[in-house]
Formats: sequence, C-alpha cells, structure tokens
Amino acid sequence: MLQISNRGQQMPPSPIRKLVPYAEAAKKKGIKVFHLNIGQPDIETPPSILDAVRKADIPVLEYSHSAGNESYRRKLVHYYKSVGIDVAYDQILITTGGSEAIMFGFFACLNPGDEVVIPEPYYANYNGFAVQAGVTVVPITSRIENGFALPPIADFEKVITPRTKAIVICSPNNPTGYLYSRQEMEDLKTICIKYNLFLFSDEAYREFSYTGEAVSAMHLDGMDENVIVMDTISKRYSACGARLGAFVTKNKAVYDTAMKFAQARLSPPGLAQIMGEAAVDLPASYFDKPKAEYLERRNLLVSRLNAMPGVFCPNPGGAFYAMAKLPIDDSDAFCQWLLESFSYEGKTVMLAPATGFYGTPGLGKDEVRLAYVLNVQDLGEAMDCLEKALEQYPGRTEIVQTEKVMSTVQ
Amino acid sequence: MLQISNRGQQMPPSPIRKLVPYAEAAKKKGIKVFHLNIGQPDIETPPSILDAVRKADIPVLEYSHSAGNESYRRKLVHYYKSVGIDVAYDQILITTGGSEAIMFGFFACLNPGDEVVIPEPYYANYNGFAVQAGVTVVPITSRIENGFALPPIADFEKVITPRTKAIVICSPNNPTGYLYSRQEMEDLKTICIKYNLFLFSDEAYREFSYTGEAVSAMHLDGMDENVIVMDTISKRYSACGARLGAFVTKNKAVYDTAMKFAQARLSPPGLAQIMGEAAVDLPASYFDKPKAEYLERRNLLVSRLNAMPGVFCPNPGGAFYAMAKLPIDDSDAFCQWLLESFSYEGKTVMLAPATGFYGTPGLGKDEVRLAYVLNVQDLGEAMDCLEKALEQYPGRTEIVQTEKVMSTVQ
Repeated sequence: MLQISNRGQQMPPSPIRKLVPYAEAAKKKGIKVFHLNIGQPDIETPPSILDAVRKADIPVLEYSHSAGNESYRRKLVHYYKSVGIDVAYDQILITTGGSEAIMFGFFACLNPGDEVVIPEPYYANYNGFAVQAGVTVVPITSRIENGFALPPIADFEKVITPRTKAIVICSPNNPTGYLYSRQEMEDLKTICIKYNLFLFSDEAYREFSYTGEAVSAMHLDGMDENVIVMDTISKRYSACGARLGAFVTKNKAVYDTAMKFAQARLSPPGLAQIMGEAAVDLPASYFDKPKAEYLERRNLLVSRLNAMPGVFCPNPGGAFYAMAKLPIDDSDAFCQWLLESFSYEGKTVMLAPATGFYGTPGLGKDEVRLAYVLNVQDLGEAMDCLEKALEQYPGRTEIVQTEKVMSTVQ
Repeated sequence: MLQISNRGQQMPPSPIRKLVPYAEAAKKKGIKVFHLNIGQPDIETPPSILDAVRKADIPVLEYSHSAGNESYRRKLVHYYKSVGIDVAYDQILITTGGSEAIMFGFFACLNPGDEVVIPEPYYANYNGFAVQAGVTVVPITSRIENGFALPPIADFEKVITPRTKAIVICSPNNPTGYLYSRQEMEDLKTICIKYNLFLFSDEAYREFSYTGEAVSAMHLDGMDENVIVMDTISKRYSACGARLGAFVTKNKAVYDTAMKFAQARLSPPGLAQIMGEAAVDLPASYFDKPKAEYLERRNLLVSRLNAMPGVFCPNPGGAFYAMAKLPIDDSDAFCQWLLESFSYEGKTVMLAPATGFYGTPGLGKDEVRLAYVLNVQDLGEAMDCLEKALEQYPGRTEIVQTEKVMSTVQ
C-alpha cells in the first residue's frame, strides 16, 4: 500500500473552506448566503492595470528573471519609497503571491524542528507553511478584551527557547484587523535583537490603516539583518487572482538563499507582473476610494455587532476583518448551524469560526471572524441575519462575558 | 549572527544560470551570443490564447478554486482524452507551472530522508525540489552511447532500499531528448509494482515526439495508485512565463493531500488559467507547425554535431534538447571559455555543461546540453561557432571516445 507522507497527513485542511459544502447545500435550497467568511474583496480591480495586460505586445510569453522582471522591481523601489521604505531593486524578489514569500522565508531561514513565535489569533495558512517546512508554530495569545494588542514582551520571553528562530507578525492583522503601534513595533525589535530572531512581517494590508499609518518592520532602525517583509498586491489592488507578491529583505545572505529557491521554480507569473508594474503608476489617490469604502463598512459592522446583546467587537485599526465575541457555545457549531438550519427572509450569513485562527486548542470557541468584503447594503442585511440568528441559536449562552457586555446590560 | 537554514545552504544554485555573468560580459564586448543553454523556446505563443485574456471581462480578479477553475479542469479532461489519458476533472489539480506540481508530489508523497531514484542525466531543478523536501536523489546512469535509453531493471534494483519511495522520469526527456518506448514504460511499471513505488512522470514535452507517440505513465494499466503526472503548458504552447501546470493523479489520497498544499497557497495564477483554457480550444493541427520546426532544427543540429571531428550526438526522439559528447577536458571550463575567450566572426555560443544534469559527481565532464530553441539560420551559425571553437579550444582531448567517433575516424 502506497502511503502519503507524514507532513501530508499533518497538513491542516483550510479551516475557512471546511464549511463550503454547507454553504453549497444552503444555496441549493434557495437561500442567499452572505459571504463574510473569506478575504476576497468585492472592490473592482483597477481597470488600468488589466488594460496594461490587454495592451502588452507579447510575441512569446517567456520566463521572467527568477527574481521577477527588473523593470518591475525598479518600479517597486518607488512604491516602497512612497510608504517610507528604502530598498534597492535587488533587495526585492517577486513571488507567486504573498504565500510564496512566506514559504521562501520559512525555507531560507528555518530548519526542521525550529520554532516560530506568532501572536494568535493568526492567519491560518501559517500553519500549513510551517508543516511544509517542518517548523513548529508557538502561539502567544493576544486577547479580544484589549482589541488584540501585542502581548507583553514577558509573554514572548516565556516561550522563547534556543530553537526559536523567528517571530511572524501581520499588521494590519488578518484575522483581527489590529494595527500595531510604533511602540509595539519597537517592542518587537527589542525582542528580536535580544534573542537574535528574524522578524517575518506580513504587510499585505499596509494601505488599509484607519487609525494611523501602518508601521512597517522596515521602518525599524538597526533591523536590516532581521527583517523580511512578505508582501502581495492581492488586497492592495483587489487582485487576489493575479498571484503576485514580494519577498523584501536587506539581509543579503537571506536574499541570495531565497533566490536559489526562486531559481528552482524558474519565475513568478508573467502577466501578473505587467499588472503589478502598472499598479505602481496608479495615483496615490487611488487608495482613497477603497479605503473610504472599507472604513464605512467597518463602522457599520462594528456598530451593528456591538449593538447586539452579548456581542463584543473591538474596533479594528486596519485591514478588512473584525473579530467578534458572540454569546455562543461553539463557533464551529454555530457557523455550521447558520448554513444548515437557519435563514431569515431567505438569507443567511457565512462566517469563519475563530478556532481556526488560534494555535492553542480550545481558544476562539466563542469568537468568529467577519471579513467586510461586501457592500454596505449587503453587510447590513448580513447583520440582520446574524442578529436574528443569535436570538434563535439553541447553543446561545447567557453568561455575561466582557466588560462591554456588562455595560450594555446595565 | 542570524543564520540561514541548512537546506538553504544545501540548495543548489541553478547550474544553467551560473554562466550568465560571462555571457553578459561577452555581450558588453559586442559579441553576439547564441543561447542554446536554456529551454526558452522562440516559438510564438499562440496569439489566440493571449487574446482570450485580452477579451476577458474581469471586474474583480478573484482567487480561483485552489485546484484551479472548474471550467478549465473540465476542459483539460478533453485535452487529456485527446492524448489517450482518461481522467476526471477532480483528478486534475492546476498548479503554478510544472515546478509546483513536482513540489506537491514530493511534499505529499515523501518524507524527509526518503529516496527517489532518477535516471541521470536529469532536469537539474529536481535537486532543488529534493533539498526543499528533505529528500535524497539516487541517480542511476543512462549512457550517451545508447542514446540515454532507460537503464536496465537490474540497475534500479541495485539502488532500491526500504527508503526508496518513488521513481522520477521525464519523457520526452530534458536534458537528453530521449523518448521512452512502450517497453521501457512497462519496465518502469514492473519495478514500481514490485517495490511499491510512486512513479512521478514529468510529461512537459509530450507533444514534441518525433520517433513515435509519447507513452504516458497514465497509459500503463494497473498503475492508478502509483502514477502522478506533472504537467505544464510552458513548452506545449510556448507559454513558459504563464506559470501554469497540472498535477494529475487517480490516487485519491495523494490528490486530497496535494489539495491541502494547494489550499495553503490559495490558488494558481488567474490570467494564466484563461490562457490555458483557450489553449485547449486550439485545433489539433496547432502542433504541426512547431513540431515540424523543432524537427528541422533537430535534424540540422544533430547532423552538424556528428559531422564535427570527435563529436557524438545521439538523435533525440523528442523534446527540444540534445546531449553531445565533445572532445574536451571539462565541459564547465569549455562553456566558460566559449563566452570568455572565444568568438568567431563576432559571435559565440552558450551551452549548458552536462555536469549540472548528473547526480553522480564526475559524470558529464565531456558532455553538453544544447537546446534547439533558435531558428535554423541562427542554429547553423551557432554550429559554425562551435565547430571553430572545438578546433581552437586549448583543453581539447584527442582521445577517441565512442564507437561513432571511431567509425567516423576510420
């Protein structure tokens, strides 16, 4: 009998996609499902960047340089400068989505058995990349009560061992929407310098910061050897399907090593690089409209959630996600029930159970992630559904769970 | 001091690209360099498949299904049927180039420390994927004297251990151009069944078979559990830069496992999938022209090479590569010398030293790989250069090395 590999067995299935069959069944019954479960924005992809592909003269669609077209990398230098990041074109390696940038970082910097510390809840696919690289994720818990702020330095120090090689952060954060402050970024620097750790910084949501500018790991002085930025155009230009990202570091040994992995897979996608290059030419004002749109949605979502009895949703500083604490017994059961057994005026809502975003078993059972990737009208109707659902859900808990809830009850 | 990983250190740099700085220096001196060193065809990408992208209405370039768009996979069922392969759409997983298909196979089926047997010379990047997966490549030598035919079953049996989990083949072959016969494919089946091995079959060059139809691993009866086909549109439609491939297997456990790796990286490139889908609609006659073109080039290349004193080039049955044995001391030194110290009428030729394609140290020192990816005119001039170069090369050997050479000498 042929066996699949151990890592293949350990590889987690997508926690976000496991409810898909229930959503499909609901749709077959004629129920409209509002998808707040995935980070697929409905924002239009800028037509000009698709036009750049349409107009390109391509007699032969050749391999690009393994690090990506030099013309694109040189343009990205200007983009990064515009967000206060000073890098050279040969410190940028174009990747197949942010996913590949994360993998290059794990493979180039970490040995099997090494540990990476990640504040939880975190982007669930970090688990998959860790299994692929044979690396152990060590979660430290950030808490909904304080909006998922960075855990104190002491919490990091409790889990750091000689096997710890890196910290992974994402700010603005998926799934919490939390935006690390300058002080929190400085705290991360303190830990990385003290313990000689890489800082892998996933900055996919940089432009969508509502409570101040996002502080990049590249803004930290004296961290040139430690920092690797994992970037992507997926969310920035609503171009998730392009599969175009970047691995950015001033650490030459790390760059050169990642380059060997890049050479093995030959090159990043060619048509997407034309899009990426055109995107750098978009005016700075391009972001005003999607950012205003997301902000309006966030405000609606957060106010609606907090108005529901027993619900607490901290106001996220960026990205397009919010985490909410609900008066429920089990978020997996609740999200499945929403699709399987509930509808309101022929509609229901699909959410992501927060359990998939925690590394510590048992956490997130009364939390869900909501991606505000639908227009305000749909988002409002989705909130109507959720409100009704919480009234009807058989597994509703009546325990008062947070200070906010207490004050609402008073 | 922050350290890169062990596998990062072990990761081989591209053997094909290491001569690039010498080529660049030659060009700076005004020398025209004929590139026979890389498998980047000059054949036009079919305009209709690029037009499909131009005409596509894409308001939002969304993530596709992690296995690729269902519409594309359903179309590929017909493509595979046309080459005698009977698979269902849910046995096809769309990948980012053939590279990712190979990686999914290694990660899904092999544990660190496992061994894969590969007839050498072989595609050099298999080494990189093996390092990435922590897998050991065990080469068995196929020989230029018999045109790189499959080594006898006994040679496989000599190296098979309890750690051996798979055989990797590529037919038509890169770098040798050799096309495995039906009997050779049956021999591989015999070994895989006897020793319970996966058969990873890289079929990138399927359409470019000149001495008969390529036998797919999927044509072998009773091998449904063993076979994984790694495929790509790169060479088939001269669309290397699209980065679109496929992982095809009837082994459900392997497919489901690869799917988990696919979910972690979200989706394959979106615009490329539009190209891939349009490519299935090309008439079967599409291949006539590029195939005839490659055949003409092959005939020119092989006859020119074999007419050079001391040179032996077996006639390849497929793909667009040929391996030649040259009267030289060291193929790495020779290929560098061609770029650094030689020119003929202001021109020179860039070749790939065969050493990079052998797993056994020391082999390939008097062999080079030539990719016939230039038109007949350029190819002829490149052969003129090589002929002159062999006359002048200081490291020329005078030893008669093969039967063919002997018969030429007589």
